[in-house]
Amino acid sequence: MISYQLKHICKQSKARYGILRTPNGVYETPLFMPVGTKATVKTLTPEDVAEVSDGLILANTYHLWLQPGTDVIKAHGGVKNFMNWKGSLLTDSGGFQVFSLASFREIKEEGVHFKNPVNGDMLFLSPEKAIKIQEILGADIMMSFDECPPIDASYQYLKESVERTLRWAKRGKDALSTEQALFGIVQGGLDESLRKHSALETVKIGFPGYAIGGLSVGEEKQDMYQTINYTTPFLPADKPRYLMGVGDPVDIFEAVIRGVDMFDCVLPTRNARHGTVFTTEGKINIKNKKYQFDLTAIDNNINNKISPYTKAYIRHLFKANEILGAQLMSYQNLAFLNHLMKSIRTAIKEDRLLDFKDEFLKKYQRK
Amino acid sequence: MISYQLKHICKQSKARYGILRTPNGVYETPLFMPVGTKATVKTLTPEDVAEVSDGLILANTYHLWLQPGTDVIKAHGGVKNFMNWKGSLLTDSGGFQVFSLASFREIKEEGVHFKNPVNGDMLFLSPEKAIKIQEILGADIMMSFDECPPIDASYQYLKESVERTLRWAKRGKDALSTEQALFGIVQGGLDESLRKHSALETVKIGFPGYAIGGLSVGEEKQDMYQTINYTTPFLPADKPRYLMGVGDPVDIFEAVIRGVDMFDCVLPTRNARHGTVFTTEGKINIKNKKYQFDLTAIDNNINNKISPYTKAYIRHLFKANEILGAQLMSYQNLAFLNHLMKSIRTAIKEDRLLDFKDEFLKKYQRK
Repeated sequence: MISYQLKHICKQSKARYGILRTPNGVYETPLFMPVGTKATVKTLTPEDVAEVSDGLILANTYHLWLQPGTDVIKAHGGVKNFMNWKGSLLTDSGGFQVFSLASFREIKEEGVHFKNPVNGDMLFLSPEKAIKIQEILGADIMMSFDECPPIDASYQYLKESVERTLRWAKRGKDALSTEQALFGIVQGGLDESLRKHSALETVKIGFPGYAIGGLSVGEEKQDMYQTINYTTPFLPADKPRYLMGVGDPVDIFEAVIRGVDMFDCVLPTRNARHGTVFTTEGKINIKNKKYQFDLTAIDNNINNKISPYTKAYIRHLFKANEILGAQLMSYQNLAFLNHLMKSIRTAIKEDRLLDFKDEFLKKYQRK
Repeated sequence: MISYQLKHICKQSKARYGILRTPNGVYETPLFMPVGTKATVKTLTPEDVAEVSDGLILANTYHLWLQPGTDVIKAHGGVKNFMNWKGSLLTDSGGFQVFSLASFREIKEEGVHFKNPVNGDMLFLSPEKAIKIQEILGADIMMSFDECPPIDASYQYLKESVERTLRWAKRGKDALSTEQALFGIVQGGLDESLRKHSALETVKIGFPGYAIGGLSVGEEKQDMYQTINYTTPFLPADKPRYLMGVGDPVDIFEAVIRGVDMFDCVLPTRNARHGTVFTTEGKINIKNKKYQFDLTAIDNNINNKISPYTKAYIRHLFKANEILGAQLMSYQNLAFLNHLMKSIRTAIKEDRLLDFKDEFLKKYQRK
């Protein structure tokens, strides 16, 4: 099981500083979780990930269920052993991928029938099955099986979907047979009343943590922030809140200010593989011609093992299609977020998160 | 400059144990040099390479000259600074690539005019220019600009080519303006008299080390071994001998037995990226279905940081196109060669290289 202690609320904002405990470690929040979709944070070794994260990462149930399959992972005693990860692990429920990747799907009360986009096989995922798979994956934190409706869903559809997700959440909780923590997920699109209803009813079922799902799926930034505002007031103060799929620095600030504790996103590592790099002085494209002779480090304000490499060298690696470029920049983007979260936690404790946000973004958004 | 001391000749073979000193380090020979073609040993960090090599690596003049260009590398003070490599470096002359990669070439006495296969630009490389570029690249050991004739070249052509390569070697030596070491290269195809002539005449010009070039280009294994036999007797005992482009474990044994001290090859890292893995129990294809549930380490006889990963996990990485698979197996293939060279050196010092070869290959070739 896990526990969460709220330690401090920033006097300038609603931002929370807390301590999350899993059977594998103690973590300060707010924190960012790198994503190891297929039991590897792309291009990085577990040692690298440990260096540039707080030690809690995410893996995807949907992907691992299909490849290599639960039998292979079961033989290893879970994903952490499989991938040689010494920290803590969170798995999602597979729901998001069923709704975003499957080429055909049929949503029924019992669960979702859908087509494997790789080979066309018909598959079925349900609240109980998502729990059963996640129990085999062996994460410290599991997620409820929910429906993530499209951004343009009608109110009527959203309402039905929220009710179904609530029933699924209850079924998932009932199916749980291990000591792993299971988080509930609040849905409801961008609708204030549905978000409130979803939050209150999910809390009634009772979970050791709550996620805000269904955001960062194409909506306007202001709508995302407002929807967080619709939700967090109805979540218990003594449980962690996790905003799924968000990793943009600006979004992280806005969500933390609204009371969110946990984040995950593939963006930092995906961007890195394409040469888009987060630095404390702004987002840059390292392939840009202007870095051809740039002998400075990728980020003058973060000191770590990649500091000796010049921008010119990293640009060369990308221009020459050398994998090391993606590795170094994945390391940088996670190091950046790790640095950011650490600074955010300090600012919360010092009751100056809004000031820090302004200072940070002034430099970050200068370019 | 460099120096070489021959310390011991194996009583069972002609294998040599020696000490090679560069301004950057002291290296026991025989040794294997990983190839960092474009200023990176593909998929590995310099820290990784330091762990699985003796500390002497190779970079390619041709590739670096074209991309990123000597001006960028000059701005960094050489390839070692550019790529953040703390060990020693050897650069080839570019000759091999001119003859193997260029889509059009015209060989003249002054040098070679050829077409850049990437953009069609006409380029020119000569003995003097190859030295000038390598001086900028800043390696501890540079190579003479030579012609590497095709395996099916006529005797008449080979003879002319050997003479031209000798004239080029002399011109390169004359052009040298730094303290970097310059090795001569013996050519002559598979012809005994030409190899002898090339060796004797190259030695007459006088270099701190000698390479055997023009092998491992498609000839039969026995022809390669025999050609080494034609060459090494005419090379001075007190200078290192480097067999270019050879990295197969069996070939390394055969060459060491014939008096070779240094090796390089892209094969270990290229194979690794395709899932072909050297282990002390044989060469395996890690993508094979039979490893799906294999919970054993990739090599039970080599203990290092990749030992915790199971064959099943590594297979999963390759099946899922995850870059970490290529990284881990590049590490393994170099660790394997490093382990092999260390064992070979011990066996030479113990006058039992032929025995060790039999023991090793019995296990290695079992599959």
